[in-house]
Amino acid sequence: MTEVALFGAGRIGKIHAGNVARQAGVKLRYVIDVDAAAAKSLAEQHGAQVTGADAVFADKNVGAVVIGSSTDTHADLIIRAAQAGKAIFCEKPVDLSVDRARACAEAVKRAGVACMIGFNRRFDPTFAAVKERLAQGEIGDAEMLVVTSRDPGAPPVAYLERSGGIFRDMLIHDFDVFRWIMQDEAATVYATGSVLTDPAVGTVGDVDSTAVAIRTKKGLLAVINTSRRAAYGYDQRFEVLGSKGMLQAGNHKPTEVVSFTAAGVSGDKPEHFFLERYRAAYALEMAHFFDALGKGTQVRTTIEDGVKALELADAATTSWREKRIVEL
Amino acid sequence: MTEVALFGAGRIGKIHAGNVARQAGVKLRYVIDVDAAAAKSLAEQHGAQVTGADAVFADKNVGAVVIGSSTDTHADLIIRAAQAGKAIFCEKPVDLSVDRARACAEAVKRAGVACMIGFNRRFDPTFAAVKERLAQGEIGDAEMLVVTSRDPGAPPVAYLERSGGIFRDMLIHDFDVFRWIMQDEAATVYATGSVLTDPAVGTVGDVDSTAVAIRTKKGLLAVINTSRRAAYGYDQRFEVLGSKGMLQAGNHKPTEVVSFTAAGVSGDKPEHFFLERYRAAYALEMAHFFDALGKGTQVRTTIEDGVKALELADAATTSWREKRIVEL
Amino acid sequence: MTEVALFGAGRIGKIHAGNVARQAGVKLRYVIDVDAAAAKSLAEQHGAQVTGADAVFADKNVGAVVIGSSTDTHADLIIRAAQAGKAIFCEKPVDLSVDRARACAEAVKRAGVACMIGFNRRFDPTFAAVKERLAQGEIGDAEMLVVTSRDPGAPPVAYLERSGGIFRDMLIHDFDVFRWIMQDEAATVYATGSVLTDPAVGTVGDVDSTAVAIRTKKGLLAVINTSRRAAYGYDQRFEVLGSKGMLQAGNHKPTEVVSFTAAGVSGDKPEHFFLERYRAAYALEMAHFFDALGKGTQVRTTIEDGVKALELADAATTSWREKRIVEL
Amino acid sequence: MTEVALFGAGRIGKIHAGNVARQAGVKLRYVIDVDAAAAKSLAEQHGAQVTGADAVFADKNVGAVVIGSSTDTHADLIIRAAQAGKAIFCEKPVDLSVDRARACAEAVKRAGVACMIGFNRRFDPTFAAVKERLAQGEIGDAEMLVVTSRDPGAPPVAYLERSGGIFRDMLIHDFDVFRWIMQDEAATVYATGSVLTDPAVGTVGDVDSTAVAIRTKKGLLAVINTSRRAAYGYDQRFEVLGSKGMLQAGNHKPTEVVSFTAAGVSGDKPEHFFLERYRAAYALEMAHFFDALGKGTQVRTTIEDGVKALELADAATTSWREKRIVEL
Repeated sequence: MTEVALFGAGRIGKIHAGNVARQAGVKLRYVIDVDAAAAKSLAEQHGAQVTGADAVFADKNVGAVVIGSSTDTHADLIIRAAQAGKAIFCEKPVDLSVDRARACAEAVKRAGVACMIGFNRRFDPTFAAVKERLAQGEIGDAEMLVVTSRDPGAPPVAYLERSGGIFRDMLIHDFDVFRWIMQDEAATVYATGSVLTDPAVGTVGDVDSTAVAIRTKKGLLAVINTSRRAAYGYDQRFEVLGSKGMLQAGNHKPTEVVSFTAAGVSGDKPEHFFLERYRAAYALEMAHFFDALGKGTQVRTTIEDGVKALELADAATTSWREKRIVEL
Repeated sequence: MTEVALFGAGRIGKIHAGNVARQAGVKLRYVIDVDAAAAKSLAEQHGAQVTGADAVFADKNVGAVVIGSSTDTHADLIIRAAQAGKAIFCEKPVDLSVDRARACAEAVKRAGVACMIGFNRRFDPTFAAVKERLAQGEIGDAEMLVVTSRDPGAPPVAYLERSGGIFRDMLIHDFDVFRWIMQDEAATVYATGSVLTDPAVGTVGDVDSTAVAIRTKKGLLAVINTSRRAAYGYDQRFEVLGSKGMLQAGNHKPTEVVSFTAAGVSGDKPEHFFLERYRAAYALEMAHFFDALGKGTQVRTTIEDGVKALELADAATTSWREKRIVEL
Repeated sequence: MTEVALFGAGRIGKIHAGNVARQAGVKLRYVIDVDAAAAKSLAEQHGAQVTGADAVFADKNVGAVVIGSSTDTHADLIIRAAQAGKAIFCEKPVDLSVDRARACAEAVKRAGVACMIGFNRRFDPTFAAVKERLAQGEIGDAEMLVVTSRDPGAPPVAYLERSGGIFRDMLIHDFDVFRWIMQDEAATVYATGSVLTDPAVGTVGDVDSTAVAIRTKKGLLAVINTSRRAAYGYDQRFEVLGSKGMLQAGNHKPTEVVSFTAAGVSGDKPEHFFLERYRAAYALEMAHFFDALGKGTQVRTTIEDGVKALELADAATTSWREKRIVEL
Repeated sequence: MTEVALFGAGRIGKIHAGNVARQAGVKLRYVIDVDAAAAKSLAEQHGAQVTGADAVFADKNVGAVVIGSSTDTHADLIIRAAQAGKAIFCEKPVDLSVDRARACAEAVKRAGVACMIGFNRRFDPTFAAVKERLAQGEIGDAEMLVVTSRDPGAPPVAYLERSGGIFRDMLIHDFDVFRWIMQDEAATVYATGSVLTDPAVGTVGDVDSTAVAIRTKKGLLAVINTSRRAAYGYDQRFEVLGSKGMLQAGNHKPTEVVSFTAAGVSGDKPEHFFLERYRAAYALEMAHFFDALGKGTQVRTTIEDGVKALELADAATTSWREKRIVEL
């Protein structure tokens, strides 16, 4: 029985708690959160205990930690967990600073513990099927990637202020998808952006709409377009063009109803937001984490992946701010 | 805490066990199956006990029974459960004999217990959304229904022999969908059928392909087409034409991948079979059952619905066998 | 140069005139219509002359007649044209009476002239592609056909009165599609119908909504559902299930625009009505007619096809009126 | 009756000849081509005469010229036609040199003649419907544009050598779509490209795959991705995100057949190439040209549009070659 400590009892913490509870041979032992009420409520729901970080790292019976607390706590928790010899599952991003993220990766490496970063999209059934079919050669060699990534609406400005900016907060996922699908590293990154949905976004030095173009070391191309607001919901698509065809990963819909009226023919909007769209992905990533722990195999989304995605986010931020092409 | 006894530890029993276990305030207490090993394995998985029917009906703590055993056991179990004052969830069909089904309905009524028949399709998110939107008037008054219902492949002949024939075994669901969506009862039923997929089906006096046309008391029309074999998988669609438009309920797909190659543009086949396609429906129907029990409200698919669907199956069987239009 | 006489300068006559004019080596020489102004206008547009039937049949230079006048004129014109040795293209139906239609077929046979009936759907690019791919074995042997055929709105009652009823006027096309796709003849026909869209339809002894089930001599099955009114436009689909899969023929749309808004995701309605949906089919059937004449090959939709479709329409009418299954 | 001279009897010249012939009140009078046999064949087909440019410009009866000859002839023909007072329809691009294109625009302006550049995509029914619906406010204000533009295969290297490079030859259309849809001019252009489909493309100093990101003066964003080779055919799509939703312009398909087999669910590939995909667009643009001439109204795609698109192509070429962001 692997005992698990969960840091963070918020929206994402609740998802992870439920998925931890579903794993055979795994028990949610502790919940830690600065919000004591939230921690208590979630702990009770799963027969776990509220505690603090020190107790977790001191408890020899805790085999793994799941970190879903705020981004500014990630690096410290990863390093402490590594030093305590715990296996680690941590939400993206590792940190807003590439240097600190690298220090985490170093600590993990030194400790020799498993560390998985929550790039949930890699576990989405649709995204994963594209990856699998691409690997099987269905469309030959990948040449070009087009990623469309749009949120239904922007988070509050208070969140944006501490988010590290749109490239580190939102596109970090898209940068990971780019690396995962194209199997190559960026040589140059160009990013531009605008404040188009809400002037408040600009007041904190951020943008809400971006266009990014990447050229890889092998000369492959990728374009990413994002927006903090899509009136029709959460838009999560990509398509990869290969020498023998194209694979598209489309949105998921709540139902398969189609309505035909005098006004037109209409279907459902995409699943509303990440909790709905990536429900299966969250379950599958946690299953994978504990499965890899059990078997002693390598996790599929490593802390190195987390560092690399952050490097791309940094490069894009620089490209946008300094209006120049960034070489990596 | 409602304690539950589950009859049947086969394919459908396992689904129900998992869904019972997921309900708050509900505990799977007993598993009963003629196959002792299957009963034991399933009981252990859920911390339940293997027992026999007598013990179940004698145990005052058992509040509800879930019947997922073979069809020939349904009637007896329903009647005994009703007499013992247990709430009942029973898989379709109630029985292969309309008379016995009516006797069950009578017993349930007399006992005043809740009894829900597992017409899972009514709980499918897509089917339920059509029903809801139709009720809201999106396409005006329903006028015509077209149901397409095809299995990926025929069951073994040994199964067919005891199935009651395609109309009672397979179309019973479609007849229930017809009644549920059209909100009217059949006035005339015409059914024809053929053995087109496997001559073995004919050797047991059954058909594997059917075409049914129904006219309701209000003059509404319905056509149902079924086949025991669709090479592309489980095909579960219907469309309802109304005075102001049409609503289509389409198939669900495992992923939203689309592939573009020199050979064409292709997407996923439908979810393979009922366990995949109706996974959500099975979960939702069980949640509804215990929710209704808890609140003391009426279940949405009653034993009367079970009797009515069976009457239609009988009428269709007669129409096909005697080559005549049957009036109800 | 083949000189052509066109009977009928109405809606369909204009379509045919344009398509005749587009054929190489073909000249529209005469237009004949009881409405002199319509005849004159259409003739002038194409550099043709207005004349009467006698003059047409007496003119040795006229090689072919295109009959797009009202249904009650078809039989007489076919017989006269056959006797005059002209090749014939005639709109469906041959006649409302099967006997007269057979007499026409006899006259055509005796005269040895080419005679093509305008079953335009066989020339629709989508429908024709299904037929071609079925013939190539893509889905194995055809087993079941589902036809959905709905008009955007009912014609005036004055039209309905002389139309021969919905089975002869509207389903005649669907019966032809059935024979063409299933490559088999009906053994039994069952038809039911209702007045659901407009009570006026009932006042002339007709119905506006029908459900038809056919079993062929080989035991294949077909269901046809029709309505005089689909609020979303002209709905012309069929699907054929075979031993190895299914082929669907879908509606055509004016554009490939998809709109995503807070209200949903919507696309175009089907092409509005037959002039739009079957524009290509009308052009292709006329090209085929003159191509076959030029090469001396058999036309693809013969007067025998016209007779057979009418026999099915008669059988369906009888089934509906007399509430019985009709054997053929 | 407007008499027309057509320069160019090649692939596109034939299309234009047919569409000119279809206009009421318009007559194709002359065909001019360096390939005498091609000119003769096309002229005969339309009852026109073969002649030379001098004769065309000297003939007072010629009201309009249609220029579909090779790109290097466009500028000279436009200037001569303008000086001769003829209305001009000219294929894109105006010229490969922005300076010469500007000189043409100047000549046209000075002469006061109508001059339309063949940006056929603006007349495509799907593209035009997006533009129209955007203008009607269906999705609020346009914020971001994503253009996907892929050919089924690269032209011969001999063609590429004189094409002006992929940005002037292929993306010129996409740059026009960008200006037309976003209703704003580019402030910065970034372009990158690669040789991914055929090394031969690189030997003539060109690329076959590009990624372009544009920021407009108002801060709107656009990304364009192109390839000379899509194994599945001609891929011509764009989508525009607005403050209230998104409009997508999709590919057109030859038929609406969908096939369901054990291998998957598949539909048609897009229309193969521009002659098929833009067949309607070519007809509609020519109808618009003569309609505007007849009414004395402004043509919708002016020579200024031609110059502007070329300026963008030049900026993109510079960005790609010099690896820098180009400001306009």
